Amino acid sequence: MYFSSMISVVILGAGNVAHHLYKAFSASKAVKVKQWYNRHLKTIETFKNEVAITDNLSELTKADIYIIAVSDDAITDLSKRLPFEDRLVVHTSGSATAYDLDKKNRRGVFYPLQTFSKAADIDFSQVPICLESLRKTDYALLKSVATAITTITKRVNSDQRAALHLAAVFVNNFTNQLYRVAHEITEAEGAEFDLLKPLIIETANKVQDLSPFKAQTGPAKRNDKKTIKKHLKLLKSEHHKDLYKLLTALIQDTHGR
Amino acid sequence: MYFSSMISVVILGAGNVAHHLYKAFSASKAVKVKQWYNRHLKTIETFKNEVAITDNLSELTKADIYIIAVSDDAITDLSKRLPFEDRLVVHTSGSATAYDLDKKNRRGVFYPLQTFSKAADIDFSQVPICLESLRKTDYALLKSVATAITTITKRVNSDQRAALHLAAVFVNNFTNQLYRVAHEITEAEGAEFDLLKPLIIETANKVQDLSPFKAQTGPAKRNDKKTIKKHLKLLKSEHHKDLYKLLTALIQDTHGR
Repeated sequence: MYFSSMISVVILGAGNVAHHLYKAFSASKAVKVKQWYNRHLKTIETFKNEVAITDNLSELTKADIYIIAVSDDAITDLSKRLPFEDRLVVHTSGSATAYDLDKKNRRGVFYPLQTFSKAADIDFSQVPICLESLRKTDYALLKSVATAITTITKRVNSDQRAALHLAAVFVNNFTNQLYRVAHEITEAEGAEFDLLKPLIIETANKVQDLSPFKAQTGPAKRNDKKTIKKHLKLLKSEHHKDLYKLLTALIQDTHGR
Repeated sequence: MYFSSMISVVILGAGNVAHHLYKAFSASKAVKVKQWYNRHLKTIETFKNEVAITDNLSELTKADIYIIAVSDDAITDLSKRLPFEDRLVVHTSGSATAYDLDKKNRRGVFYPLQTFSKAADIDFSQVPICLESLRKTDYALLKSVATAITTITKRVNSDQRAALHLAAVFVNNFTNQLYRVAHEITEAEGAEFDLLKPLIIETANKVQDLSPFKAQTGPAKRNDKKTIKKHLKLLKSEHHKDLYKLLTALIQDTHGR
């Protein structure tokens, strides 16, 4: 049934995830975005010639699947206000559960594990989409929709999704903050942060094939006390010193120093 | 003078940097490795048909430049034992200074800012080489040798190099440890670390064009207290909780929360 015609989708919300999903679905032959809802029509007005847009929930059209891509706090309320029941409704959050959706509809999760900015283009075919459906029979449809835009889909339960979301904070938000610290350190000496960019790429590339455990190098792993002492002396910010000590201790714990 | 014939180089040491330098020079048309020294001949024995090898400092041949690629602690001693004077001798360390080399020779630094493993191939043309020479007149030669293998060369002073080396620990060693923490978090729930790999790449890619400040996203930056609380509850290790709190505070400091 799903394969004979296009799967119809309604997107609800207009943040970064919603925009990137809309774009990916629009480029796909297997899924059609039938309608795009947002409480502020203005945010999606530029798309009115491509897709039906609305700011009125009572105008929502019939579709195979409704994808709620709003902030975590707004998911439950929006799902309660949907004027229909027994349809498949999913959210895109990494940390909310499927039970955060109102139970009058069939529920699931459609979580694209990636960082989205309006400015940066994303190759969606390389974005893992983590799927969950409360009813077994809904999974096939969910998977078809995901497969239409990515090559990486994965069924995960809520605990696994929560772990992935938390881990994502470490590899993305926290890693980016380490880049920021490096930026501050180099700036303070008039050195170029740009010189670190190939190293940043290589660090990310290395763990595509090697485990982070095996990829580890540096003074902490070598227990090079002289360099560690030198570095701590160079750091001016107490926060940065604390961070250096904590991560050094963690590397040494991990590697049995 | 340097451009009319090949620049001759002697490499001293046989660690990862020495191996990668040897390989890069061998592929270059402007530089010839005349000799490779290591105190253990066995480590470089496989190269004996390509290059003169020796474990005897008194056998060192005449060359335009001697590149000492040994551990920081061994640099001074090795430079003292060189049986010649007034030649150009450099080390490849990020944290040692040019003054750590014995003053009987002309001194400099040839610091490739990258992480090197024996297993992983590196495109040396994208490795920034940070250069320093104590005598101004040696700089041109140093730069010619660097330019033979990379497109990115930069003159830096010792303070700048120390800052870059420290910053490199943050973007490489510490970032890799964050990947390791993420690995532990996902493993504990039976989730796949592999699903994070595209995010790891995108995080590194993003700061190639955007500053880390502008690239920042996530619950800490949004001051999403509910998610932060949820995450802290999920973390089992006290070290990981400390790390989460410290990096969250640092992001909030940076972004004025």
